Amino acid sequence: LEADDIARARALTLDLHEADLADLIEVLRQDDRAALIAALGDEFKAAALPELDEAVRDQVLEDMPPEQVAEALQELDSDEAVYLLEDLDREDQEDILSKLPYFERIALQRSLEYPEDSAGRMMQTDLIAVPPFWSVGQTIDYMREASDLPERFYEIFVVDPAYHLIGCVPLNRILRSKRPTEMEAIVDETMHPIPVAVDQEEVARQFERYNMNSAPVVDPDGRLVGVITADDIVEVVQEEASEDILAMGGVGGESMVDTVWETTRLRFSWLVANLITAIVASIVISFFEATIEQMVALAVLMPIVASMGGNAGTQTMTVAVRALATHDLGPANAARVIWRECAVGLLNGLLFAVIMALIAYFWFGSDGLGLVIGVAMVVNLFAAALAGILIPLGLDALDLDPAIASGVFVTTVTDVVGFFAFLGLAALWLA
Amino acid sequence: LEADDIARARALTLDLHEADLADLIEVLRQDDRAALIAALGDEFKAAALPELDEAVRDQVLEDMPPEQVAEALQELDSDEAVYLLEDLDREDQEDILSKLPYFERIALQRSLEYPEDSAGRMMQTDLIAVPPFWSVGQTIDYMREASDLPERFYEIFVVDPAYHLIGCVPLNRILRSKRPTEMEAIVDETMHPIPVAVDQEEVARQFERYNMNSAPVVDPDGRLVGVITADDIVEVVQEEASEDILAMGGVGGESMVDTVWETTRLRFSWLVANLITAIVASIVISFFEATIEQMVALAVLMPIVASMGGNAGTQTMTVAVRALATHDLGPANAARVIWRECAVGLLNGLLFAVIMALIAYFWFGSDGLGLVIGVAMVVNLFAAALAGILIPLGLDALDLDPAIASGVFVTTVTDVVGFFAFLGLAALWLA
Repeated sequence: LEADDIARARALTLDLHEADLADLIEVLRQDDRAALIAALGDEFKAAALPELDEAVRDQVLEDMPPEQVAEALQELDSDEAVYLLEDLDREDQEDILSKLPYFERIALQRSLEYPEDSAGRMMQTDLIAVPPFWSVGQTIDYMREASDLPERFYEIFVVDPAYHLIGCVPLNRILRSKRPTEMEAIVDETMHPIPVAVDQEEVARQFERYNMNSAPVVDPDGRLVGVITADDIVEVVQEEASEDILAMGGVGGESMVDTVWETTRLRFSWLVANLITAIVASIVISFFEATIEQMVALAVLMPIVASMGGNAGTQTMTVAVRALATHDLGPANAARVIWRECAVGLLNGLLFAVIMALIAYFWFGSDGLGLVIGVAMVVNLFAAALAGILIPLGLDALDLDPAIASGVFVTTVTDVVGFFAFLGLAALWLA
Repeated sequence: LEADDIARARALTLDLHEADLADLIEVLRQDDRAALIAALGDEFKAAALPELDEAVRDQVLEDMPPEQVAEALQELDSDEAVYLLEDLDREDQEDILSKLPYFERIALQRSLEYPEDSAGRMMQTDLIAVPPFWSVGQTIDYMREASDLPERFYEIFVVDPAYHLIGCVPLNRILRSKRPTEMEAIVDETMHPIPVAVDQEEVARQFERYNMNSAPVVDPDGRLVGVITADDIVEVVQEEASEDILAMGGVGGESMVDTVWETTRLRFSWLVANLITAIVASIVISFFEATIEQMVALAVLMPIVASMGGNAGTQTMTVAVRALATHDLGPANAARVIWRECAVGLLNGLLFAVIMALIAYFWFGSDGLGLVIGVAMVVNLFAAALAGILIPLGLDALDLDPAIASGVFVTTVTDVVGFFAFLGLAALWLA
């Protein structure tokens, strides 16, 4: 951006929605980002900051003077302010916090003390809570006069003098009740309050299970400390799904804005794990060098057995990992699912045994070779099913994330079993 | 359930939340499900029906008399009623619809006419719309007297006489405004209305982008036809993520309640695609039978080259497929991402070339073999990066789902290139 373009850029961006403004900032070069934000000055929409991609966001926040960041934080809802602060380093955090008024500072500091990815980090602390003996009229008058209300809210919470949560009253119920009605009379006590330390994945599950649009957050003593709304849950679900997909593909923790070096480093360790797997498989093959020398067709066909096992194992594993993540697989149905996977593995094993036996027979004109590859196929597809279901279940039982490590273990099993069954049977047949 | 247990079962289940009741129904045997629902009679919570797993739900609905289903539908919000009806076959649908009162029947029929997975199917048609000249007081009085209001709502819509959407007024703004204020004065026109025919994936993206808790749905003429809330979006996001994960694992369209036969059939076709890939790779190997006969160590090492390529390709592909799904990858950054992936592929290729060259040298005592596998590794990891990024981008450009087919194509490339580069170079070296 040239100096003389600034005014025009300013005019063009003033009316943008924060999400669109964020997109614009992302495509600019680093210098231009700071120039644009400086040009917008007080009119810069703070709401655009949480919409920025993580890497860009941290860079923009570092380039902004702490005073301006502090002002921006005050414009934002408390959950978004926490979201901006949590990734900054300790020093920058304190620099910015020190510029905030007392109450905002205390509130943000308290939120930052909750564990990462917990309900306490996600929640919005601006909310409306009233005592049970207030009337609907009193509550409405209070809302008309209060100046520091949250921007959006969908219910009023009812609390006792010690701020213990009694229940909530959706706004539509307040609107439909007569002014003298006591809040106590219309309060809904069948909520699902969320403990403040619970992980965001569990929070999302509660929202999904009970189709909630918002939920109160309580501390261990049952005191109301915040509220979480469904729009935040949409982001959590998307984020958790991305984490699982990337972990299963061996690219956990990556982002689209990582540099070549970061990406290379992140992928390297996964590829090392895979290299070890592949070498184990090669060692198995090396036991049978003499057999392969006797009949080189074995070298041609052996990757087929391993590859089919790898794919069948990945199929079973994918279903198991996803079902564990969505809690559709658990102790209640594990036995039934294991049985089903074994049966499917055996059936597909038999089908592909016949197909491959025929292919091998017609290709190499040897019925013995057909029989060998057929039996190896059944064995490996059955092993693939067992590994595909038992490895994720085992990792989950050990409280490890099945999405991350299942793949390496499953393909190790299918490679080793595949090469061993095929070459071993061939050695027996040729002997 | 024995006859004498029915009363007790009834007593135990009456107070359950619908989500918990649904879980209970799912674990029962088919006969017991019908018995329990019959025992609960009018007190059966219709809201439990949409919570049931698809297979169980369809079976329960078929076992219930159409009159009871029709009654249950009237208890539900319109979006849930549509959700229950849409999977039933045409005949059952009409049977049930014919038992409904006129207005409910027409509304449901209209919703069912929208394409599957569209905003029209997701939306809730019960909503409150008022003319712009109404006062806040009139609106509140109307809500107090109306009997057919939706169970939950968060805003009032303002429409012109032809029902064209003008804007919305969040309930909290109504509560905080004086009774004589005209709705026109407090209406918010900066919404993001959703066209009724838009796909649910796009709806979810809008909600995420603009952090919405609810959004109006409009027909092609801009008339208000429904409203979508964020709790439905949570389910859509979860569903779309599951679809992508399962598609990438070669198990698209599967469910935890499928039988052994269904599962075998669904997986069979994916395994056939993989078998063809594996046979292509074997044909490549067969070109070099003479070379392998000359040096059987090649058969031992060749799966390593193919496997490393397959994993590196899967890494790139996973990042690309997920980024396409979340719209983090598009024309704006495709060139940069392609360049980054190629650079990462080349770098990791060089690293693993050195590692494998050393391993092969020390294992088989041949520096020629080390050089051959090193060069083959660089070639294959670079090919893996190219295939991993270009294949998903290409499928996406052709409007095909990159999550479904990318895997087969990428591993075909890495297998063929891996075996060809390694065995071809070995043949040149040995000649």
